[in-house]
Amino acid sequence: MDKILRIDMGSSGGPKCTVSDLGGYAGFGGRAMTSAIVAQEVPPLCHPLGAENKLVIAPGLLSGTIAAMSGRLSIGCKSPLTGGIKESNAGGQPAQVLARLGYAAIVIEGKPAGDDLYKILIHKDGVAITADNSLKMMLNYDLVAKMKQEFGEKICCISIGPAGEMKMNAASIACTDMEQRPTRHCGRGGVGAVMGAKGVKAIVLDDTGMPVRTPRDPEKFRDANKRFVEGLMKHPVTGQGLPTYGTNVLTNIMSEAGGYPTFNFQQGSFDGASKISGETLAELEKKRGANPTHGCHRGCVIRCSGTYNDKNGNFLTKQPEYETVWSHGGNCGIDDLDAIAMLDFLDDNIGVDTIEMGATIGVAMEAGIAKFGDAEAAIAMVKEVGQGTYLGRILGGGAAVAGKVFGVERVPVVKGQAMPAYDPRAVKGIGVTYATSPMGADHTAGYAVTANILKVGGYVDPLKSDGQIELSRDLQIATAAVDSTGMCIFIAFAILDQPETFQSLLDMLSACHGVSITADGVVDLGKNVLSMERDFNARAGFTKDHDRLPRFFSTEKLAPHQVTFDVKDEDLDRVFNW
Amino acid sequence: MDKILRIDMGSSGGPKCTVSDLGGYAGFGGRAMTSAIVAQEVPPLCHPLGAENKLVIAPGLLSGTIAAMSGRLSIGCKSPLTGGIKESNAGGQPAQVLARLGYAAIVIEGKPAGDDLYKILIHKDGVAITADNSLKMMLNYDLVAKMKQEFGEKICCISIGPAGEMKMNAASIACTDMEQRPTRHCGRGGVGAVMGAKGVKAIVLDDTGMPVRTPRDPEKFRDANKRFVEGLMKHPVTGQGLPTYGTNVLTNIMSEAGGYPTFNFQQGSFDGASKISGETLAELEKKRGANPTHGCHRGCVIRCSGTYNDKNGNFLTKQPEYETVWSHGGNCGIDDLDAIAMLDFLDDNIGVDTIEMGATIGVAMEAGIAKFGDAEAAIAMVKEVGQGTYLGRILGGGAAVAGKVFGVERVPVVKGQAMPAYDPRAVKGIGVTYATSPMGADHTAGYAVTANILKVGGYVDPLKSDGQIELSRDLQIATAAVDSTGMCIFIAFAILDQPETFQSLLDMLSACHGVSITADGVVDLGKNVLSMERDFNARAGFTKDHDRLPRFFSTEKLAPHQVTFDVKDEDLDRVFNW
Repeated sequence: MDKILRIDMGSSGGPKCTVSDLGGYAGFGGRAMTSAIVAQEVPPLCHPLGAENKLVIAPGLLSGTIAAMSGRLSIGCKSPLTGGIKESNAGGQPAQVLARLGYAAIVIEGKPAGDDLYKILIHKDGVAITADNSLKMMLNYDLVAKMKQEFGEKICCISIGPAGEMKMNAASIACTDMEQRPTRHCGRGGVGAVMGAKGVKAIVLDDTGMPVRTPRDPEKFRDANKRFVEGLMKHPVTGQGLPTYGTNVLTNIMSEAGGYPTFNFQQGSFDGASKISGETLAELEKKRGANPTHGCHRGCVIRCSGTYNDKNGNFLTKQPEYETVWSHGGNCGIDDLDAIAMLDFLDDNIGVDTIEMGATIGVAMEAGIAKFGDAEAAIAMVKEVGQGTYLGRILGGGAAVAGKVFGVERVPVVKGQAMPAYDPRAVKGIGVTYATSPMGADHTAGYAVTANILKVGGYVDPLKSDGQIELSRDLQIATAAVDSTGMCIFIAFAILDQPETFQSLLDMLSACHGVSITADGVVDLGKNVLSMERDFNARAGFTKDHDRLPRFFSTEKLAPHQVTFDVKDEDLDRVFNW
Repeated sequence: MDKILRIDMGSSGGPKCTVSDLGGYAGFGGRAMTSAIVAQEVPPLCHPLGAENKLVIAPGLLSGTIAAMSGRLSIGCKSPLTGGIKESNAGGQPAQVLARLGYAAIVIEGKPAGDDLYKILIHKDGVAITADNSLKMMLNYDLVAKMKQEFGEKICCISIGPAGEMKMNAASIACTDMEQRPTRHCGRGGVGAVMGAKGVKAIVLDDTGMPVRTPRDPEKFRDANKRFVEGLMKHPVTGQGLPTYGTNVLTNIMSEAGGYPTFNFQQGSFDGASKISGETLAELEKKRGANPTHGCHRGCVIRCSGTYNDKNGNFLTKQPEYETVWSHGGNCGIDDLDAIAMLDFLDDNIGVDTIEMGATIGVAMEAGIAKFGDAEAAIAMVKEVGQGTYLGRILGGGAAVAGKVFGVERVPVVKGQAMPAYDPRAVKGIGVTYATSPMGADHTAGYAVTANILKVGGYVDPLKSDGQIELSRDLQIATAAVDSTGMCIFIAFAILDQPETFQSLLDMLSACHGVSITADGVVDLGKNVLSMERDFNARAGFTKDHDRLPRFFSTEKLAPHQVTFDVKDEDLDRVFNW
């Protein structure tokens, strides 16, 4: 993993590849790599869909090794949704495979002159880039099937659906899972639109003939990984909660805590929560012969994923994540798991972010385009996104654009990106993260739900403003570092609570790279990543005034706790004072 | 004109009026008044369509007197289009009438709880606010006819069409002209959406029984006004060019200068220019029995306006302005005056900004929604705006939103507002104004076309970057002051070239208010206004990085001169260093 592949899509004679060593980017992986390249090479005021933007795809520092949980792939660019820097990561196979192929990053640059659509094959013998207009407007599942037919069963894919080709702000980039299903998405920030603007439909990876990455100190590495896995297995969240119920275990918890945004953030708990909860979902999956415990990539031991079968017992989609169940469920007043699963499938197939889509439909419902609770209308809306009808185009533009188009005041976005499944008024730590993350509203950027709700890594009362700044700061720093390792963020539960598990991660990193990485080093890495990102955003025109929630969170009380978001502006401005 | 009328539309018992004296706002008029109130009273981070925004309507310092050209009405708010402060002004009768009724400003505050639509009558005996849902979705011409029926022939109206009710970003506020036609629009920045969000459909003004405003020194005032009118009459632009051909005299000039944005800013001159030029327009108007020389308000002596008759000799619309002829004409590749006049009429009737609409259709054409040059498609699009179809909603959202929805890179906007009819690459002074004006791209904010193209007020080579900063700075300062007087900006041609005409304006202001106003005082006023506006924008999150043109103006050469916009960023940052 010591080279960078650059593909210039705008080269006059057609796309052109060059391979270089890491140069100044040595030591970076995942989010650190994507953010470093974007911050250094992309003009902050360029148009996100223009030739000057770059799409950077990077496996993490540990990806491609035998390290458990190391399968996250980071994709970065200037975001068409937020106008700022973006890193969006996903599970699935591509991070492992790309790392084994030896690439620390793929950088897609330029913009083709015509409207040809390209596929890129990367394997042990090199790179082949081919125009293939038969792929135009192909859905992700069909596309992957076609790529398998063409390139064999051992491939994995990074691809866009019609939404990306239409350059929609909500467009995602799909990564295939172990069963070669395009179910794991770099969802946030419209990264799929940037891939579409580059004219790239699919990147097909085949690591046949390439060995597992060898750490510098294999024995120490193997030992550290063993302790790491043991740590994950013994923590109740990663060892039991997530495998059994998946992330959707949170539906009941959040609704009971009064922080479950319902009817486009009008109230904090949902009457239909139990109908769509993780417990109900797991039962249904069992009944229909689906798999409730499944890993999305080789080496996953938490296995929070699963599969969802339709009424006839046939695979419909992956087990929908909590945030998806929320966005298409309670946020739109929908309490029907089959409808939510269908929406999840459509989103994956069309290639849009499930969080942004659900939030956008919520805004459309507030505008009166459909009634809250109308699942059929929601399904029809997402289908329109895939067809690129005018309504579909509006919705594919994301919640902020839909709010502008429909003249809606209550639009739950920060920096143009929709808020996920936690109301910032009743989970104030996550509100601080939403407000201040360089990514726009993003729960994964500093998941304060841990200490606010789950009492992991300590406890900070979610309804009070005390302590939220420090909580969000520490988590944002830790997350920026973890996102650079290729590790799934869910390892945080165990490493926050168990010092020995955190140490095993440090030992793995040290053994892998033949250096001595300490806790302080990890903190420094996280701070470095955040600083690069914030610097890019500052040069793109962002100020502290963009580190704010929409005003209605300060003025409208949220039931049942009757709380507003009251963290002071001057405190928000302290988050990055370290 | 010594009182402020505040109307709280959100008061619990229904809309509530209060009248106060000017207090700290004494001495302000027009843009100075609207910007002072918005800057002081509106939270910069509020939602533009929310209860915290205020719509401020103010006649100028000289409005309501016998001063020639003093009929501009300023309307200000936080703009839903730009997110910054907005002042948009229009001619027509309301400024004169409102001033004679004694109001220096109307401030519409709050937001009604229900969805009732209100009309407001203001006359010498007071204010009456009535819910009237029969007005819902009424077009501006029908609305004015109904108001005349109801309140008599002597009224004038300030109103919104369906676009404002639908809270579209491109929605304008219409002011009636001397013939009570809703043809003069505060077009820019979506002020109509804010009026719509306040639930106000129409403000009907009747100054029956109110005298002309009396200056402090009537004799000196009369004398100054006489010299002022003489000055306007003797200058070739205000005395001949504008009366004879209207503003559209610029079509041939700009196309020949290579600064006429054609096909969504793809080239700088238009083959069809002569077919839609002011000369052709004046001839056609004559042939069809229309009036090519007409004033939009009492006291106008330049009379750049006119009327446009259809093929059967019936009134269709006002004589379309140059910017309208451009936006719906060359910018969309349309060279048919009847189509352009129809588009002008539809815009006025639906209540949208002609500049924003034409620019948006240009972006839609670039996206392939219709072909450049297809006039029927353009007319159909504007009709869809009025109907609020999904396509209409997208287009009514303005060029920036349409660009996002359709995934278009070449979107000619600054701070979200569409550029008018002068390409900044070939008229670099106006490029500096577009980039730096607190209003977003706006030709009227500092009309450097004067010295760049018309050789009025000196000459600065439009194709070179030298001298453009100083030119735009001086014009932005002067304009902010003139916009505060109620004077039509076209007086600038005469006051820039003729010191004695400028002196007569100073004398009028002094005689009116019983103070001694000097040239320096006018400059100070202009600087003060700009400072208030820039301060608001800074608090709303704007930085120097928002004082930039879209990147394609720096990277794409404009034919025929093969120029890019090359004024340096650090020079743009000097515009407001005075």
